[in-house]
Amino acid sequence: MHVPDLIRRKRDGGPLGRDEIAWVVAGVTDGSVPSYQVSALLMAIVWRGMDAQETAWLTEAMVASGRRLDLSRLPGPKVDKHSTGGVGDKTSLVIAPLVAAVGGTVPMMSGRGLGHTGGTLDKLESIPGFRVDLGPDELERVLARVGCAIVGQTADIAPADRALYALRDVTATVESVPLITSSIMSKKIAEGIDALVLDVKAGRGAFMKTREAARGLARALVDAGEAAGIRTEALVTAMDAPLGRAVGNALEVVEACETLKGRGPADLETLCVALAARMLRLVGLAADDGQAERRVREAIGSGEGLERFRRMIEAQGGDASVVDDYRRLPIAEKRYLVTAPRAGTVTRLDAELVGRAAAALGAGRQRVDDRVDPAVGAMLATRLGGEVRAGDPILMLHYQREADLPAALELAARAVEIGDAGAGAVGGGELILETVSGRK
Amino acid sequence: MHVPDLIRRKRDGGPLGRDEIAWVVAGVTDGSVPSYQVSALLMAIVWRGMDAQETAWLTEAMVASGRRLDLSRLPGPKVDKHSTGGVGDKTSLVIAPLVAAVGGTVPMMSGRGLGHTGGTLDKLESIPGFRVDLGPDELERVLARVGCAIVGQTADIAPADRALYALRDVTATVESVPLITSSIMSKKIAEGIDALVLDVKAGRGAFMKTREAARGLARALVDAGEAAGIRTEALVTAMDAPLGRAVGNALEVVEACETLKGRGPADLETLCVALAARMLRLVGLAADDGQAERRVREAIGSGEGLERFRRMIEAQGGDASVVDDYRRLPIAEKRYLVTAPRAGTVTRLDAELVGRAAAALGAGRQRVDDRVDPAVGAMLATRLGGEVRAGDPILMLHYQREADLPAALELAARAVEIGDAGAGAVGGGELILETVSGRK
Repeated sequence: MHVPDLIRRKRDGGPLGRDEIAWVVAGVTDGSVPSYQVSALLMAIVWRGMDAQETAWLTEAMVASGRRLDLSRLPGPKVDKHSTGGVGDKTSLVIAPLVAAVGGTVPMMSGRGLGHTGGTLDKLESIPGFRVDLGPDELERVLARVGCAIVGQTADIAPADRALYALRDVTATVESVPLITSSIMSKKIAEGIDALVLDVKAGRGAFMKTREAARGLARALVDAGEAAGIRTEALVTAMDAPLGRAVGNALEVVEACETLKGRGPADLETLCVALAARMLRLVGLAADDGQAERRVREAIGSGEGLERFRRMIEAQGGDASVVDDYRRLPIAEKRYLVTAPRAGTVTRLDAELVGRAAAALGAGRQRVDDRVDPAVGAMLATRLGGEVRAGDPILMLHYQREADLPAALELAARAVEIGDAGAGAVGGGELILETVSGRK
Repeated sequence: MHVPDLIRRKRDGGPLGRDEIAWVVAGVTDGSVPSYQVSALLMAIVWRGMDAQETAWLTEAMVASGRRLDLSRLPGPKVDKHSTGGVGDKTSLVIAPLVAAVGGTVPMMSGRGLGHTGGTLDKLESIPGFRVDLGPDELERVLARVGCAIVGQTADIAPADRALYALRDVTATVESVPLITSSIMSKKIAEGIDALVLDVKAGRGAFMKTREAARGLARALVDAGEAAGIRTEALVTAMDAPLGRAVGNALEVVEACETLKGRGPADLETLCVALAARMLRLVGLAADDGQAERRVREAIGSGEGLERFRRMIEAQGGDASVVDDYRRLPIAEKRYLVTAPRAGTVTRLDAELVGRAAAALGAGRQRVDDRVDPAVGAMLATRLGGEVRAGDPILMLHYQREADLPAALELAARAVEIGDAGAGAVGGGELILETVSGRK
């Protein structure tokens, strides 16, 4: 095959074939297709897009570039959840144990934070001793014992995605629905799951700024999942303000525990229950969403979800007593309270800026090889659309180094907008905007 | 500067600045910008284009990547002509001596053939001893003595263009007006000329298949030239059928000599006179095109043009007696006559296919490092729109190896179409389609 011909066809808006895509992806993985040709092809894909069939083939080829887990020895349906990334999103920590408690097996491979968004692995690593680097055999043992595990992606999962992403990152070819879709779905399909629920964020704190863009990505993700034989459904959810009240690694672990204890913030609990319920319904552990939600709420009420979380922490080498004693988590002692400069309605509580404020304190990364500080972050003291008086607390920064504070304060101040009492808030409406289901 | 930001801006349709373009081009030249970023940027340029200002800056940066000739010690105005490439186009061999004969200085840097189009350097090298690899000092001496020289581009002329072109060739990013424009104009501006006339071909045998596309390229070329302070004008000319009757290196040298002797084919003479006249008018050696054309025709009639050609060949180490004795040129003895299969009008004499037929005999290159055979080619025995009887000669193939003949015959047969008597011929209309002048 002649690579310039494939680039030219995509450049001119034509489709690529299954064998052609498979051949290029294999060449990306083993280095036989030069990176300058790959990047030109990537830019042509950003330009011209890929249809659902091409996207499915690209995803398939990326799965085939590495190992696909075989979890067939484990009993029960295998199901996972994936979020496109938001601020304060600790749903994975809540959902995995809840779904396991109701009978699902959740082999969750997750990622780290970058920029203003946090990462599930970073959050879990704030628990002393917690290990995310389990090998396939160890992962299978934890799943057999606990029903859920949250681990990092091993090097043999979709290596083509790693090669492509590294190139996309430095050639401004990240922003492309088919490329994002194949990157996400190849890793999820490689988990060997039967079903997948996606949480596609839309809004100020999300990669997709509009509901329409998020819907388009959700559709592409669902189609790619279904094409690979995985029952897939997506929720499009609002990400204008942070989810819950905690932003920062250990702070979010605390909030996840509180939610498993039935004391979590309403928005976080609502989303966790909705996502977990859909996972259960997709794999037949509940007849409909109503029944599924009742079973999830029972797992919260009975403490079985919390118990699964405790056992998962233990099985992954962590100190499970943090669940009962939050003082065993690293949480920064220094505090700075941001208060309302005037009375009125909180019309903006910008998720991206709050995320950046927390990152400025050390909770996030600017570059993939930065280290994060588990102890720092922000706790919201109000919610979007809430009424405040002048001087009321808005958010509390938890920090370690005085030098980090000014930049974080500046971002936090810009994140908040207080309008006249009764004013409408941006994103103050529904949390769950819509559902995108498989076409079948 | 952060390359991904520049790629992203162009990808999103924004303009690049002068410093940014200069910095990237310098990085391309010294290798400090990785080729995978350059190729992504090139594809974004193919997609989004560049405005006249960006194109001028790109051209300027490519000129600055190497040496710019200083011909200020030579008397008289320096002027050149460039063609975007056609089949049977030997105008350079005719025009350079004619313009020199009327008082211009023509420092013509030319190229080699590739694919179905021939190259001026290949044609000249069919003259025994002719050298195209003159250094700058030698070039200046020849120009001082003869008034014209036709040489290859030295390595220190626009090295950024060489690096970019090599990458464009393997990443399907050749087809872009700003990239083509900067590639052509950077090399011409580096010649240190005062004025430039461009011959932009349109039609079956040209890179630009339509008159509209050719006009767009002509406008971009003229704007880039004027932006660099060079008086520039372009003719858009038809390239449906080959220009003149000879296609092939030595065969074309003969036809160029015939034209300088006033016995050339009408279309070739018309175009040579028109282009040379515009060169003279642009540098003020004639008041208008009418006067300029008269002076060019006088230089043909007086034999002064032929004399300049003879002296140029001599000055560049060649055997100038070929001008009087064509038998001293390598012309293949083996002939194959293609005749008309039926009576009627020649409605098609496809330049690209005739060019490919000649190339199949060895007159052209498939790859840049192929060698060409100076002795082979095709001589047309009829013209587009001409009436023929069955069995009348259409074209004569001059070949060396029997093995080359079948492929060439197949191409030659496909090149010719004979319709009913009186039928209209594709491209049988005007040769000079329009003029594109500077905006000032």
